[in-house]
Amino acid sequence: MNKTFFELKQKCPKTRARLGVLHTDNGDIPTPIFMPVGTQGTVKALTQESLYELDAKIILGNTYHLYLRPGNEALKFYKGLHKFMKWKRPILTDSGGFQVFSLQELRKISETGVEFKSHIDGSSHFFSPESVVETQRIIGSDIMMVLDECVPYPAEYDYVKKSAKLSLSWAKKSREHFLATKPLWGHKQFQFAIGQGGMYEDLRRDYVRQMVDMDFDGYAIGGLSVGEPTEQMYDMTAICTEHIPENKPRYLMGVGTPENLLESISRGIDMFDCVMPTRNARNGQIFTTRGKFNIRNAQFKLCDDPIDEELGIPTSANYSLGYLRHLFVTNEILGLQLASLQNIGFYLWLMRNAREKIACGEFETWKNSFLATWK
Amino acid sequence: MNKTFFELKQKCPKTRARLGVLHTDNGDIPTPIFMPVGTQGTVKALTQESLYELDAKIILGNTYHLYLRPGNEALKFYKGLHKFMKWKRPILTDSGGFQVFSLQELRKISETGVEFKSHIDGSSHFFSPESVVETQRIIGSDIMMVLDECVPYPAEYDYVKKSAKLSLSWAKKSREHFLATKPLWGHKQFQFAIGQGGMYEDLRRDYVRQMVDMDFDGYAIGGLSVGEPTEQMYDMTAICTEHIPENKPRYLMGVGTPENLLESISRGIDMFDCVMPTRNARNGQIFTTRGKFNIRNAQFKLCDDPIDEELGIPTSANYSLGYLRHLFVTNEILGLQLASLQNIGFYLWLMRNAREKIACGEFETWKNSFLATWK
Repeated sequence: MNKTFFELKQKCPKTRARLGVLHTDNGDIPTPIFMPVGTQGTVKALTQESLYELDAKIILGNTYHLYLRPGNEALKFYKGLHKFMKWKRPILTDSGGFQVFSLQELRKISETGVEFKSHIDGSSHFFSPESVVETQRIIGSDIMMVLDECVPYPAEYDYVKKSAKLSLSWAKKSREHFLATKPLWGHKQFQFAIGQGGMYEDLRRDYVRQMVDMDFDGYAIGGLSVGEPTEQMYDMTAICTEHIPENKPRYLMGVGTPENLLESISRGIDMFDCVMPTRNARNGQIFTTRGKFNIRNAQFKLCDDPIDEELGIPTSANYSLGYLRHLFVTNEILGLQLASLQNIGFYLWLMRNAREKIACGEFETWKNSFLATWK
Repeated sequence: MNKTFFELKQKCPKTRARLGVLHTDNGDIPTPIFMPVGTQGTVKALTQESLYELDAKIILGNTYHLYLRPGNEALKFYKGLHKFMKWKRPILTDSGGFQVFSLQELRKISETGVEFKSHIDGSSHFFSPESVVETQRIIGSDIMMVLDECVPYPAEYDYVKKSAKLSLSWAKKSREHFLATKPLWGHKQFQFAIGQGGMYEDLRRDYVRQMVDMDFDGYAIGGLSVGEPTEQMYDMTAICTEHIPENKPRYLMGVGTPENLLESISRGIDMFDCVMPTRNARNGQIFTTRGKFNIRNAQFKLCDDPIDEELGIPTSANYSLGYLRHLFVTNEILGLQLASLQNIGFYLWLMRNAREKIACGEFETWKNSFLATWK
């Protein structure tokens, strides 16, 4: 008997939070879930072994970056990204649309796809909805994303509407090509669409409805956390999740702070990714169960307290804040490693807590009290 | 009953190689030993946990760097370097002489010590033979080194002779101050002198004899591997070890390649440190049981062989050369971590093998066949 991909297990009685499981051939993913970002086939400064220890259930890769390096030929040679990077759990790959559309001067869009120049060597490349499916077949990601046009913020209504039309036409082609092709490496792959529509409620709503009609395995919300006020992000998120069927997973892309995650869970989101924990770690911002702070601050110079004892991360329980500060002040690589372990560990801990609290019906109370004290 | 610090266990019948043990309160150190360099209180890109897994028996710290950052006040607050960096095994600290004398434009030498400007902020500092003992009492290194003047290569006979006289006078003051003071943190500390004398046999010999008269716990050979021909380094090493009593450990500072280590063991050396395995790792040069190579080479692009299966290092057995190349080509931190693990693991493996082969009387045969095939 085939299990459904997404199993909805429980709903919060007070918010729209949900508890679920994504079933993949490479392992089950409990939701709500945070997915550490491993753009180029590595979550920065962390070994795959340490990601297992932190109990990361799924990580991200990026189609744009992996297509350029190591490239499709190498990915084929290694029989996909899992085997190349020796990661035995699920992988989700973003389509690379966000990256291509960040190359402001380097791209040319048409109905058939987008031409762009590599940020590495300036060479010309072309992504179509179909080619992006093909590359993700080669990568072998458990969950692949469609190619979409990412609109900047702020953007005019007419431009967003026109862009949404193109992205929806690409989504249709993506879905058709996905259904017409097969996985290469023996495990099942799933495909998510990405909802756009800028900050316009009607465009967001129309977009989601049309996307849902194409019957994807899951639905992402794109184009948020791009500079808009936080409340607007929450509103757009709520509008989108209201129109995604309950039996499909919802993924809020590129979000966000611990507060953003909990508030978006309340609005029905199941999946998150964000570079914040790893990028901020490398800048010396540490997320802990006691709050967040800049480890370079002089207050930590003479501070023998452990980085964080609550997370069950051996290095965070072992090393002091004072030692971590020293590593940052002296630009030592170990500082990046310990801070990244801590921050990813904290994000995963936060999601574990959220799941436990949804399971026992205490999500809203816990969320409110956590955010009140944590901030 | 007090164990002696250095226990000589066995001698090679064909070379001057020796098998021994250094007994310290923080653990026994089998010799010959390679000591990974942890200049600023961290072996670059490696956690202390991974150093235990690699079975590093002792690591190095540097008095000059630690004195500047985190500084003596912080080191006192944390009750020494072991507790600060959570390292439970022995630590040897270099005096910082080499670093101070590398600051060509920034120092002023007198009979009482050396004035220098910090490479970090230009602030003025003064190191005397006595203050360097004091700082190493605060650091709490199991083995401390005396302050010495490091002469450049090449150097005129008269200059080297004059410098040797100063260093010997400093060594005497260092020993007196060491014997007049006590450890601060409850474990015993030992003190090594550092033999100088440039590339002049008679100066080397005289220096060693006078140093030995001061009865240190061990003797280092300094001022080698500074640009001289390899054969000259081996000759100077042999001259020095001939004049160090058999019951004292001999430490060749800052050396070197795998070949240098094995050839110096043949000449009676017990201890080594060198930045080569970690520094070269960060530049993409990998030392493996199959030889050394630059991991960026295109030959590794499509290469699914493990980095090295022989060392018992999980990451080296798990990840492929092709993946490691990808990490270097994309400037990913994980590349530095995996390469550093591999290279330190290789150096420690080499020393384990040397000890086993000395123990079974096959050191010379093994060394010759290893170097013939490894190169």
